[in-house]
Amino acid sequence: MKRPTMVDIARRAGVTKSAVSFALNGRPGVSEATRARVLAIADELGWQPNSAARALSDGRAGAFGLVVARPARSLGIEPFFMQLVSGIQGELSGDGTSLLFTVASDAAAETATHRAWWAQRKVDGVFLVDMRLDDPRVAALEELRLPAVVIGAPVDCGGLPAVWSDEAAAVRTAVAHLAGLGHRSIAHVTGPAALRHTLIRAEAFTAATAERGLTGRNVEADYSGEQGFAATRALLEGGERPTAIVYDNDVMAVSGLSAAQSLGVRVPDDLSLVAWDDSPLCELVRPALTTLRRDVAAYGALAARQLRDAAAGRSVEHRRAPDPALTVRDSTAAPSRDTAAL
Amino acid sequence: MKRPTMVDIARRAGVTKSAVSFALNGRPGVSEATRARVLAIADELGWQPNSAARALSDGRAGAFGLVVARPARSLGIEPFFMQLVSGIQGELSGDGTSLLFTVASDAAAETATHRAWWAQRKVDGVFLVDMRLDDPRVAALEELRLPAVVIGAPVDCGGLPAVWSDEAAAVRTAVAHLAGLGHRSIAHVTGPAALRHTLIRAEAFTAATAERGLTGRNVEADYSGEQGFAATRALLEGGERPTAIVYDNDVMAVSGLSAAQSLGVRVPDDLSLVAWDDSPLCELVRPALTTLRRDVAAYGALAARQLRDAAAGRSVEHRRAPDPALTVRDSTAAPSRDTAAL
Repeated sequence: MKRPTMVDIARRAGVTKSAVSFALNGRPGVSEATRARVLAIADELGWQPNSAARALSDGRAGAFGLVVARPARSLGIEPFFMQLVSGIQGELSGDGTSLLFTVASDAAAETATHRAWWAQRKVDGVFLVDMRLDDPRVAALEELRLPAVVIGAPVDCGGLPAVWSDEAAAVRTAVAHLAGLGHRSIAHVTGPAALRHTLIRAEAFTAATAERGLTGRNVEADYSGEQGFAATRALLEGGERPTAIVYDNDVMAVSGLSAAQSLGVRVPDDLSLVAWDDSPLCELVRPALTTLRRDVAAYGALAARQLRDAAAGRSVEHRRAPDPALTVRDSTAAPSRDTAAL
Repeated sequence: MKRPTMVDIARRAGVTKSAVSFALNGRPGVSEATRARVLAIADELGWQPNSAARALSDGRAGAFGLVVARPARSLGIEPFFMQLVSGIQGELSGDGTSLLFTVASDAAAETATHRAWWAQRKVDGVFLVDMRLDDPRVAALEELRLPAVVIGAPVDCGGLPAVWSDEAAAVRTAVAHLAGLGHRSIAHVTGPAALRHTLIRAEAFTAATAERGLTGRNVEADYSGEQGFAATRALLEGGERPTAIVYDNDVMAVSGLSAAQSLGVRVPDDLSLVAWDDSPLCELVRPALTTLRRDVAAYGALAARQLRDAAAGRSVEHRRAPDPALTVRDSTAAPSRDTAAL
């Protein structure tokens, strides 16, 4: 069995290829009876329109693109991206749009991929993740006039629409929870400082701790378990040990828990931990981790709807997704008296 | 700036569109000087061939497809797939082939996606993962004559080529390691019994433990942290407690470690653990986990080369990747006397 063509349908129906084309494309020129027979045969043979021919005739690629510029090894255990892809896909599958997905080594390679995809008409639009300070991808996309949606805060996005949630509010929620338990010295292990949302979270953390008269320290890491582990050990072995740590992702929080346990620091008695982006990881360690969670799949679906509108030439506004919410589990508690006295 | 077309190049070069087409397609009919000028302008404008036009003229989609039929939530923390995609992508990027990636709810939905991709000429071939016993996808693909490469054992693949590593040998290596340490009762927490490689591993485990006169038990789970945790608790609270457990992935092993710790069972003193598919997870828990590891990205690259050959109509043999190797860390040790006496 070969892939069925209009010629196969014409032969089976006993009509000309033109008649088949008229019938399949809903154009006049064939009787209703012929049209019905042609459609039934097309369905039976499993015929579908050639996406390349359709792309040429209507000028659309029928695909969106997502490039992720992070090392594959750290990507592997980052639940965020698979959940995002799943949400995007759920939305796109309705109208048969495909998702082209690839990994790139850096922003320049990502832009080169955008340029090639667009010039070759492989995509109608792209999703941008991991926005950087002074992100060079924004100007590159605007110059290409490639429709795009930023997944992240609506800051320095040029004319690109953003889908975002309020990360500063999430940080304030975590700090309020820890302050309410009695913590006075809190650390924040962040993602890379070059990322826009790292800056937003770090500034919000500094402000929220200062407002309450707490000691607050931001420590930069890179989302990897290795750096989460090292940053936690350094905090716990340093002079002014915090009684609580907030992590910018779940992988670092899980490794931070291991680091504490390897030093005999009890969680939550001696140290409270809060993770970001709830994945099954946070539930399966002991103690289970208190986290800031958001519905990443819903976030992806929202971004897909925005990109569909942008690619269709409709004007698209920034859209705010629900704020991350705190899920309290067993890794946060009031600091013990001994610990608080340190 | 719009996407540059041949008309833009012709205008800039002061030649006809036909001359541009001749020049870009390497056909005679233009002077060498004109050809050089046209190519330079095309490069400067960022022109690239329209993938849809090229797909129509040469009959190739320029893309391969991968559908994964697992729940998105469990996928999120399964490092295997991102590493596989990264390896596939590294190989495909060389010749500009794209990867279409999507998630599906079950095998039927996966086959429907294959059928639509192929009928619409969106892909030139697909990768098959998570092979099942009597897998319905094999016959469906063969009927479609859609080129495909099986990522898994060359068993019941019909005429499809497989890229595989010897999982039975890996199981024997793990059992030999544990037996060498003095373990006499070992459990194996598996993936879903419906998967081909679960059967291969379970049979190898039964044979390897029986050969050495050990007690060996297979317990089915589903790769999720939840079931890894529950299976481990059941084993540790049951009548004949094993002194060692081998897990079919790293997520279940990490949750198994948590389950042991939650019961006060010391690892490795009271219980040795071996994980499968080494990810940073295995290194960042304490104790760090002994694992069976393979180079998943290299495996993906090998599969991509095979699929490229299959899609080009070349005859493709099964290809065996290196066997998984045991990386010994801190989660395996000789059973303590108390434990062995239980």
